[in-house]
Amino acid sequence: SLSAYGPARTTIQGTPLALDELRKTDAYWQASLYLCLGMLYLRSNPLLREPLRLKHIKPRLLGHWGSDAGQCFTYIHFNRLINKYDLNAIYISGPGHGAPAVLSQAYLEGTYSEIYPDIREDLVGMQRFFKQFSFPGGIGSHATPETPGSIHEGGELGYSVSHAFGTVYDNPDLIALVMVGDGEAETGPLATSWHGNKFLNPITDGAVLPVLHLNGYKINNPTILARISHAELEALFVGYGYTPYFVEGSDPESMHQAMAATMEHCVLEIRKFQEKARQTGAAYRPRWPMIILRSPKGWTAPRKVDGHYLEGFWRAHQIPLPDVAANPAHLTLLESWMRSYQPEKHFDAQGRLIPELQALAPKGRRRMSANPVANGGLLRRPLDMPDFRTFSVEIEKAGGTQAGNVPTLGNFLREVMRLNMQNFRVFGPDETQSNKLTALYEVTQKVWLGEYFPEDADGGELALQGRVMEMLSEHTIEGWLEGYLLSGRHGFINSYEPFVHIIDSMFNQHAKWLEKCNALPWRADVASLNLLMTGLVWRQDHNGFTHQDPGFLDVVANKSPSVVRIYLPPDANCLLSVADHCLKSVNYVNVIVADKQKNLQYLDMEAAVAHCTRGAGIWSWASNDQGVEPDVVMVSCGDVPTLESLAATTLLRQHVPDIKVRFVNVVDLFKLVPHTEHAHGMTDREFAALFTSSKPVIFNFHSYPWLIHRLTYRRPGQHHIHVRGYKEKGNISTPLELAILNQTDRFSLAIDAIDRIPRLCDMGSGVRETLLDQQFACKNHAYEFGVDRQDIQDWKWPF
Amino acid sequence: SLSAYGPARTTIQGTPLALDELRKTDAYWQASLYLCLGMLYLRSNPLLREPLRLKHIKPRLLGHWGSDAGQCFTYIHFNRLINKYDLNAIYISGPGHGAPAVLSQAYLEGTYSEIYPDIREDLVGMQRFFKQFSFPGGIGSHATPETPGSIHEGGELGYSVSHAFGTVYDNPDLIALVMVGDGEAETGPLATSWHGNKFLNPITDGAVLPVLHLNGYKINNPTILARISHAELEALFVGYGYTPYFVEGSDPESMHQAMAATMEHCVLEIRKFQEKARQTGAAYRPRWPMIILRSPKGWTAPRKVDGHYLEGFWRAHQIPLPDVAANPAHLTLLESWMRSYQPEKHFDAQGRLIPELQALAPKGRRRMSANPVANGGLLRRPLDMPDFRTFSVEIEKAGGTQAGNVPTLGNFLREVMRLNMQNFRVFGPDETQSNKLTALYEVTQKVWLGEYFPEDADGGELALQGRVMEMLSEHTIEGWLEGYLLSGRHGFINSYEPFVHIIDSMFNQHAKWLEKCNALPWRADVASLNLLMTGLVWRQDHNGFTHQDPGFLDVVANKSPSVVRIYLPPDANCLLSVADHCLKSVNYVNVIVADKQKNLQYLDMEAAVAHCTRGAGIWSWASNDQGVEPDVVMVSCGDVPTLESLAATTLLRQHVPDIKVRFVNVVDLFKLVPHTEHAHGMTDREFAALFTSSKPVIFNFHSYPWLIHRLTYRRPGQHHIHVRGYKEKGNISTPLELAILNQTDRFSLAIDAIDRIPRLCDMGSGVRETLLDQQFACKNHAYEFGVDRQDIQDWKWPF
Ligand SMILES: Cc1ncc(C[n+]2csc(CCOP(=O)(O)OP(=O)(O)O)c2C)c(N)n1
Ligand SMILES: Cc1ncc(C[n+]2csc(CCOP(=O)(O)OP(=O)(O)O)c2C)c(N)n1
Ligand SMILES: [Mg+2]
Ligand SMILES: [Mg+2]
Repeated sequence: SLSAYGPARTTIQGTPLALDELRKTDAYWQASLYLCLGMLYLRSNPLLREPLRLKHIKPRLLGHWGSDAGQCFTYIHFNRLINKYDLNAIYISGPGHGAPAVLSQAYLEGTYSEIYPDIREDLVGMQRFFKQFSFPGGIGSHATPETPGSIHEGGELGYSVSHAFGTVYDNPDLIALVMVGDGEAETGPLATSWHGNKFLNPITDGAVLPVLHLNGYKINNPTILARISHAELEALFVGYGYTPYFVEGSDPESMHQAMAATMEHCVLEIRKFQEKARQTGAAYRPRWPMIILRSPKGWTAPRKVDGHYLEGFWRAHQIPLPDVAANPAHLTLLESWMRSYQPEKHFDAQGRLIPELQALAPKGRRRMSANPVANGGLLRRPLDMPDFRTFSVEIEKAGGTQAGNVPTLGNFLREVMRLNMQNFRVFGPDETQSNKLTALYEVTQKVWLGEYFPEDADGGELALQGRVMEMLSEHTIEGWLEGYLLSGRHGFINSYEPFVHIIDSMFNQHAKWLEKCNALPWRADVASLNLLMTGLVWRQDHNGFTHQDPGFLDVVANKSPSVVRIYLPPDANCLLSVADHCLKSVNYVNVIVADKQKNLQYLDMEAAVAHCTRGAGIWSWASNDQGVEPDVVMVSCGDVPTLESLAATTLLRQHVPDIKVRFVNVVDLFKLVPHTEHAHGMTDREFAALFTSSKPVIFNFHSYPWLIHRLTYRRPGQHHIHVRGYKEKGNISTPLELAILNQTDRFSLAIDAIDRIPRLCDMGSGVRETLLDQQFACKNHAYEFGVDRQDIQDWKWPF
Repeated sequence: SLSAYGPARTTIQGTPLALDELRKTDAYWQASLYLCLGMLYLRSNPLLREPLRLKHIKPRLLGHWGSDAGQCFTYIHFNRLINKYDLNAIYISGPGHGAPAVLSQAYLEGTYSEIYPDIREDLVGMQRFFKQFSFPGGIGSHATPETPGSIHEGGELGYSVSHAFGTVYDNPDLIALVMVGDGEAETGPLATSWHGNKFLNPITDGAVLPVLHLNGYKINNPTILARISHAELEALFVGYGYTPYFVEGSDPESMHQAMAATMEHCVLEIRKFQEKARQTGAAYRPRWPMIILRSPKGWTAPRKVDGHYLEGFWRAHQIPLPDVAANPAHLTLLESWMRSYQPEKHFDAQGRLIPELQALAPKGRRRMSANPVANGGLLRRPLDMPDFRTFSVEIEKAGGTQAGNVPTLGNFLREVMRLNMQNFRVFGPDETQSNKLTALYEVTQKVWLGEYFPEDADGGELALQGRVMEMLSEHTIEGWLEGYLLSGRHGFINSYEPFVHIIDSMFNQHAKWLEKCNALPWRADVASLNLLMTGLVWRQDHNGFTHQDPGFLDVVANKSPSVVRIYLPPDANCLLSVADHCLKSVNYVNVIVADKQKNLQYLDMEAAVAHCTRGAGIWSWASNDQGVEPDVVMVSCGDVPTLESLAATTLLRQHVPDIKVRFVNVVDLFKLVPHTEHAHGMTDREFAALFTSSKPVIFNFHSYPWLIHRLTYRRPGQHHIHVRGYKEKGNISTPLELAILNQTDRFSLAIDAIDRIPRLCDMGSGVRETLLDQQFACKNHAYEFGVDRQDIQDWKWPF
């Protein structure tokens, strides 16, 4: 039957709970559910010591009930096993709107009062605890950073399982108990994240125990997984590589026994698999256990109200009785419902949980609400960093030699990896090799717990224990990385630039999480999320229009300045300097934009460090305005744009005698905004010192040009800044032709300068024509041969 | 065995191909593969009538081989069944980088030459066909819009199955044959899209026949699905609700028989399921067939080159022999490999496919490359539109009454639905009811082919045949809608604003697709993609920070102006006018931002139509600068911001005697950009006429404020524009408190005006204080009661 009702139906039989334990477990659950309803409804009269009156009710009812009972149930049953087997466990709430469930547990375990002393374990504390929930000036209605024990807010659904896997990689001792909403399970990111088990090594990693919360409903709809046959559902999870154990029903007593027996079975199975692998030293992929908990949505609420289904239906999703203010009968119903949990039995006169129930909770750091893994900064050890200067590219003459920017970074990452083989991983969606970070494979491989074929030995770079994690799911690898970082480790993710948009919303959510953590003194610093975008728009000429989208930076720039950093190093040495800085930083998302192809190199290591430290600066070797006013300021931001800007500078100096050009390069994008708006921002004076306040500025930008306008709109002289960038003109082309299409090529930039230098107004027209002819010739060459002219490909800085 | 090698291993036995048919089928396949290699390598000597020389080879080798053989194989075998059963079918290439496969088919079927007459079916045409592939000035290396028969570019992986389902809904006759990359299958969007079968009605919809292309590899990695046990793989697809049929091996002869037998079995099964449902009239969810094709990556390439695996390994992914220019032995190898396909036998002296092979292809519109479904505009019938004025909200006095904006839209959509029950659908991620579009359920329900429970009758709104499509996957519903539109129908999608970011990249790809189609005369106009964002940032005060992200507009504004439109109607009548316009439009993505709560209403229907037609205008009823210069221009863009701007205007007029305020509202965001950059843009003169060129402008914007700066940075007077918007300050709060946090509330706006009106510099300080006090009082009220003050909630336009 697909019904969530009736006595427990279960894969694992057994009644492990003695009668007294059963009674206490149920009481603990009731106390929890009482707290959940309290949070949703009450602003005073917390233990209903007076009859319930309207004045005790919050004026605005907010929050979610439907997920709470099942989540509390699961959490509580795991507590028993934590105690029994001394488990190291955290709890991840997929449907984080079921926050009352986790909040109630943190409160009952005492963690809440430890962190927030004003929320005491007494009547006053409970009243504050209730009132603050989903209340202005209080806390949110999801498992927000304010929630002890949470690393996963669950506001945007879909990432619970990938987060869970992220926490257990390299945490052999840990079990991440993760509750997955059956609605959440319909999201794409969640649906593929089950495959995390193919990347989990039973010797060196911990275990994820997923509980699919099959409460049957979402906001207004049944869930798919609750409405397919038992056979299909079971097959699905067998297909995902798990052994699903069913616990189905609504009768509390038998459900308690069933859940206790099933969870214990799962824990023992996990231990058995781990022991087998650890004793033999042979890693393998067992069929890990998972639980399918089918119980009514809003479990323990009235089944029907005024003839309409509540419990076991989607109406139980949010506030179960929304109109208690207008409907006295509903107020009465609420009161008797709340009283049915017998708060007076579970809490003492002071309003504190009675000792015999307190005894059920784990102690100290074993409490899932107090496990340091869920405040991962506490466990974070700084990376052991090699000296990045060791990997520098030799520069004989600026702009005279080529090297691969990202490959050079790869050498550095290889050494970072070598020195941190316990707490550093690199993540990519099947692109780490294509992105030329292959040096990593000299010290580690890609983790792979799938089957092996003979040909894998021929360059497969797969290993049962590997520290590069690749799956073709930007969502999953991002989720893994977030989980890995939030549990106190370090990491680095690489992706083609266009497809980073796939995780726009995950980035948003992570940035919001970090931003809120900054305001919580008890949250310890976590390592920054370091994201390398490569496979850049300007070198996607061969893949075409779908692969050309540098707009992720616009998404990033919308987040709080306190948590985001954007770097566009112009060459390999700058990239090294930037990467070193990022890997040492905490609490940010660092976005690094760098090309993986061969590029001209400009700055030796010392110059690179100085330039990156400034974040933006004049390149005097590329300027000839020393001691005089420049005619024009050529600015580049991004490695490929820098090449074209330099080439344009050359054209200007070759074609316009005695032109004075200043060359500026910007590495750190937020230098451009006023210092009042971002910690990296320049003052107006600093800004004018670089860009002048009246000379034409020809700014060649890596991304969409208007981002520069948005960052500089307050600057004096802003109207002199003429920005070029990707204008959404693309096709299959050559690098130069793609630049020409978007007018970011050397010829267009030089023409832009000529058009804007007043004294060249009339004089410049001959040069202008020449440049246009050259541009045209380059385009024709591309069309005929499919490649850029050799002189373009071989171009070097000539001065 | 998990090996892709050996004679065919197959679920369905049979040898349906007579010897001669087998020979011809194989010849057709060889001809196809020859063309694929030709596209990758040749710029001349198309049929190798001369010995292969370096000069015949493209200077830059681009494109993908690994997917081609399997895709051609599948396509060709389906041709046989199209002919045999007169099927109406399209082909969707999940890994669209296998474009040579589909291009070769379009060329062999003659479609290519029909559309592009210069690419003739002769030697010259073939040479051009080869050269243009992935070549500047030519076509891309994916199944781009230029590809006949393609509705799915497959550049960004993950959407093939949802696109396929989108095409067959309401297309009872159609089979969408969709090839899914085993790498693609790892993406989140793809992993959940298999569930499209729970929304497919066998009576009124067509069928999707997925072929999982288990070629075992991605770019540099094995795929998960190719490295799990047979039992797990089978279970997975049974779990997804399919009957998987395996075809595994590498031996062409037995594989041809196996694929022919299996595909025929699938087609007959589809027909049987459909007939059963159609004859009985009882819709149900059969276990639809799907095929798992396990064959070597790069099938038919040399197995090893220089001792390294090529065929059957990831090295076959892109150009199989990348160094033919530098390595003469490889050039020789390429030549003999190409000749092994015996082009001289398959193409005649002119270079045209020989008649006996031509005869294998379907004819006319039955060719998958020429099926009008894949150029859906050909089939598009305009919607039968009700008069939107019928649904207008009565306005006695501007700003005097409240109504729900989105609910009013719901009434209109209901009638659109009623009049277009064959070719219009509404899509939402479990939010259509929460978003208050419930009026739709008066004429249709949500389609649901899962199990039914008794409680569904109590407000479930589920039906076997429904036209509202809800699954908790923003990716899937967006993919369905895109498929539905591109196959010639109409639709409307609604989502919470923050979570639209989940489909940023899908939007990007769809916009790019439309943009390219605009340049192809043979591509007929398709209906616009209409996206309603509601659950807006300003009314997510209760859900908190994770639900506050209005940044999707920034993503939209980066796309080509020719395909994107953004509307922020200030009230219900404007929303109706905008929606009517959008539903009638073609080739755009229309983004509509509208609140679902009760809002003040301002414009009667005629005024609304006029205002929306202008796109931005002065509201004279809210202005008192008639005939004189205004002191300040108050501007609003967005429904919630409009309320606060109006309230601020009132405060100014109440507190500052004889102040002259002009009130401007912007509906159509692109009005703000210069007319040279967007078809909707105003001239500078028009712009100055609204905003003045020297008066302070206090612009209250729905989204992040800097977007306005980016759109107006070229405008004269831009420095007088002071923009307020969401500044990434959020928490659990009340609507007013959230506005206060971001300084978009009435008090902040009024203060902004006072601070910027020169003559109030000193005079205004008393008023300023008063306003700050009031703001403070409002905040305190929110903190104490959890709701905004009643006078704030009841605020009306007083003049
Ligand atoms: C990605 C995403 N889309 C939409 C929503 C809006 N939403 C909030 S709760 C919910 C239903 C969740 O259902 P389920 O996962 O089953 O949770 P539960 O039943 O435990 O409450 C939806 C659609 C969301 N939070 N995230
Ligand atoms: C979402 C996304 N991420 C990454 C890529 C880069 N990429 C292009 S092809 C490919 C491998 C595809 O493998 P598969 O789907 O198995 O295709 P096939 O083997 O048929 O070539 C990847 C990762 C992409 N195109 N889309
Ligand atoms: Mg649910
Ligand atoms: Mg593959």
